[in-house]
Amino acid sequence: MDRSNHRAAGRSKAGADFLQLRPENAPPGGLAEWLATELRTAIADGRLALGSRLPATRQLAAELQVSRGVVTEAYQRLTEDGHITARGRAGTTVAAAPIDRPAVFQEPPGTPVGLAGLSVDGTQRARVGQLTLADPDQDIFDTMRAAPARIDLTPGVPDLAAFPRAAWLKAERAVLTDLSASAFGYGDPAGTPALRLAVANWLARNRGIKADPTDLIIVAGVSQALALICQVLGSDGITELAVEDPGSLGSRQHLQIWGMRTPPVPVDDSGLRVDVLRDTGAPAVLVTPAHQFPTGVVLDGERRRELMQWAIEGGLIIEDDYDAEHRYDRPPVPAIRGMLTEQVIYTGSISKLLAPALRIGWMLPPPRNRRALIAAKRHADLGNAGLPQLTLAHLMESGELERQLRFVRRRHRARRDAMIDAISNHLPTATVHGAAAGLHLTITFPDTLDDIALASAALARGVKTQPLSWHHQHPRSPGLVLGYAARTPTELTEAITLIAKAHKDVS
Amino acid sequence: MDRSNHRAAGRSKAGADFLQLRPENAPPGGLAEWLATELRTAIADGRLALGSRLPATRQLAAELQVSRGVVTEAYQRLTEDGHITARGRAGTTVAAAPIDRPAVFQEPPGTPVGLAGLSVDGTQRARVGQLTLADPDQDIFDTMRAAPARIDLTPGVPDLAAFPRAAWLKAERAVLTDLSASAFGYGDPAGTPALRLAVANWLARNRGIKADPTDLIIVAGVSQALALICQVLGSDGITELAVEDPGSLGSRQHLQIWGMRTPPVPVDDSGLRVDVLRDTGAPAVLVTPAHQFPTGVVLDGERRRELMQWAIEGGLIIEDDYDAEHRYDRPPVPAIRGMLTEQVIYTGSISKLLAPALRIGWMLPPPRNRRALIAAKRHADLGNAGLPQLTLAHLMESGELERQLRFVRRRHRARRDAMIDAISNHLPTATVHGAAAGLHLTITFPDTLDDIALASAALARGVKTQPLSWHHQHPRSPGLVLGYAARTPTELTEAITLIAKAHKDVS
Repeated sequence: MDRSNHRAAGRSKAGADFLQLRPENAPPGGLAEWLATELRTAIADGRLALGSRLPATRQLAAELQVSRGVVTEAYQRLTEDGHITARGRAGTTVAAAPIDRPAVFQEPPGTPVGLAGLSVDGTQRARVGQLTLADPDQDIFDTMRAAPARIDLTPGVPDLAAFPRAAWLKAERAVLTDLSASAFGYGDPAGTPALRLAVANWLARNRGIKADPTDLIIVAGVSQALALICQVLGSDGITELAVEDPGSLGSRQHLQIWGMRTPPVPVDDSGLRVDVLRDTGAPAVLVTPAHQFPTGVVLDGERRRELMQWAIEGGLIIEDDYDAEHRYDRPPVPAIRGMLTEQVIYTGSISKLLAPALRIGWMLPPPRNRRALIAAKRHADLGNAGLPQLTLAHLMESGELERQLRFVRRRHRARRDAMIDAISNHLPTATVHGAAAGLHLTITFPDTLDDIALASAALARGVKTQPLSWHHQHPRSPGLVLGYAARTPTELTEAITLIAKAHKDVS
Repeated sequence: MDRSNHRAAGRSKAGADFLQLRPENAPPGGLAEWLATELRTAIADGRLALGSRLPATRQLAAELQVSRGVVTEAYQRLTEDGHITARGRAGTTVAAAPIDRPAVFQEPPGTPVGLAGLSVDGTQRARVGQLTLADPDQDIFDTMRAAPARIDLTPGVPDLAAFPRAAWLKAERAVLTDLSASAFGYGDPAGTPALRLAVANWLARNRGIKADPTDLIIVAGVSQALALICQVLGSDGITELAVEDPGSLGSRQHLQIWGMRTPPVPVDDSGLRVDVLRDTGAPAVLVTPAHQFPTGVVLDGERRRELMQWAIEGGLIIEDDYDAEHRYDRPPVPAIRGMLTEQVIYTGSISKLLAPALRIGWMLPPPRNRRALIAAKRHADLGNAGLPQLTLAHLMESGELERQLRFVRRRHRARRDAMIDAISNHLPTATVHGAAAGLHLTITFPDTLDDIALASAALARGVKTQPLSWHHQHPRSPGLVLGYAARTPTELTEAITLIAKAHKDVS
């Protein structure tokens, strides 16, 4: 660029007025650090464009009515971390490298996604050799994940190829640019204030929940949330946590590992049978009201009222809001926690919104459980990692996450429709459930089919699914749980034709 | 360097005598493995310098009175993991990658680090109002962290201002560029293969440990490692874990939370009193052999042999290798795990090497504990987040982490020296302990001083320290634990003068 333009740009733009610098906001004794931070922010958000010239130290000092040493010190710090360069007569100019254009989102690679997490030794592969879907033990999900499959329809993951890599990197860069050194130390076990605030705002915008950020606890996903809840309830003498039937096998195994009995409560077309919940006498229940797993049923108004009444009479609701933001043909269902503050421990995560690999989730407990749950989180791992929390907070507050959600929702809907078409074409006897929302659908078969044999046959043909009976405590109609969000329409159509073949294999 | 010098150096240094190789110590049938481990340790601790030449296989075989095949096999293994290279007529030379010059790093910002982690609400500040150092309860460290202080000397953090922000971002960008979509899904609870391999290489280069990557378990720091170990040992009926006295209050509280009794074993100038450990009858012990916390004592050779003998007779050693890479005036002390595979659960983390906020650590258990510990990790949180693991692996394998370590080691040494000078000038009655390595030092006072009152008085004057008596189970001489790594020499000098004033306040 032409230097005279820099100077003009510099003069016209980079003054204290344009930057709206307010020295009175600086902490006592921290003027230079404050100014450096202000300038970094201005560079990060583009008010100070790349190549633009900063005012001379004397000029800026005069405008800010601070000593020239303060400005020199601030410029020095920005020079040290590469934001600006001093070029003699050319003056001091903004030199931070711009973020590259985002790369086109990658489609899933050809290598079977089922290999994700296959440990570098052969042990899991070896265990896959003995894979017995019929007997899902504690590490069945690790085993399944390690099982090679050409098309992975494991439910519970969004379109991983759509992870916003460039936006994530850009947000992290912005966070690192003006992060204080102390943020790299041990943090608040309940989570960084920035993310707790961002999640509170997210829940207000998207889930009808009004939460004080300081009531939120950041955790490593819903799985850890349930572990901490079991520990705290257990120390209160609670050893029984009713679950939905059908309901997530993984959650049920997890609760049992952490010492809970899990009496089943049937789910019908209106959702959880609250009358049966009462009969169990269980003091607490784990529910997925917005989009029940695996049936996809929405807890209807009457049942919500019954469930809240049960809670008001002393029951504790653990609300797993696992994929409520993914909806296609219906308005969003507000969270129960939005209507009932005292008797609900609400939990959700970023796993279905962005990626499970981020291991970030949140818990919104009633005030009386808050301290015990924070202590449990501290004793588990001293709190989540800081940098990813701050990066996610940046994505949430900038609107990037909502943008991402709108983007994947369109893709998910198209994929769901492709799967439903393929099912009606190739599996005419199957009934589709829970397609109005979420990342998966469930199909059931009228005949007396062994769905574990079906899932095994499908896996043998290269398609990974979950047999519905895994998620049943009491026998019901056989079926499969099919995740569609992470696969392309072409893959989904091929997968269904292969499942149809597998269905013939076992019929 | 000139090759002839290598050869001379090699000839004069790298013989079996110089390396004090004792084949009689080798396990039956494990001669090659034993020799490889010995040589790795010699490379790790500098006895075999970079570029120095190893003796010819025939020569070394003759000196050791072993078959030449044993030496060839050992050299082959070192070649495979990059420790040495065979250069035809130049012979076999030590080839650990050289490290580049470090980039410029930021000075710590002016804002008080003592405010780190202050939650957005007033609760912690309020609790600080009632701060009672005298009664360290389970959340004393959260309370302390939230306590405002102008200069924070809390031990256990490196120079946080030196966190390599640009290198981290660059590594993460490189990782994101060619990451498969499936890597954003649920991963292996034991950790990503890439980081397990990088850590295995790191331990071989820096800690004299030869580990199969698949034996490593990635965890959210040593704190989580101890929690998982307690869960697994507890399920084996072990409820007692001996600890060093003095020893970390935080670790002791943590073990107790997870159901362990923690009988104290005194530490003297040679380290842990193994004879007293025997008397306790405890089945397991948590030790910090390389740099004992808080005394800084190194477990000497005689005690190491006693401790290993105790383990060989059935004891379990949990080796917390918390800051072994930070050393100034002495050669590194190889990890006990490097010499004893079966009876040691080794654990370490990135907290003291890069930043606690990353929440990444590792565990190297004996094979028999491996599966149970991986299951415990899965039940805790399904595994660490993927992206930070891959980014860290990139930093470790590129040599960036060693570069960072060398850079901060110089800064830490200068800061330690500044603190020691200030102590001798302003606290003449204080005795300094454990300054040869680590990130903190301990001072003791001859007089019958209430060190909790001293720490409180220092905090009132704006300096955050830990009273030594916190870390004692049995009364000893009073003192303070002073972290110096994260503060500038100027801050350290000021802090010591303020502590001297506080000392007068309470004398």
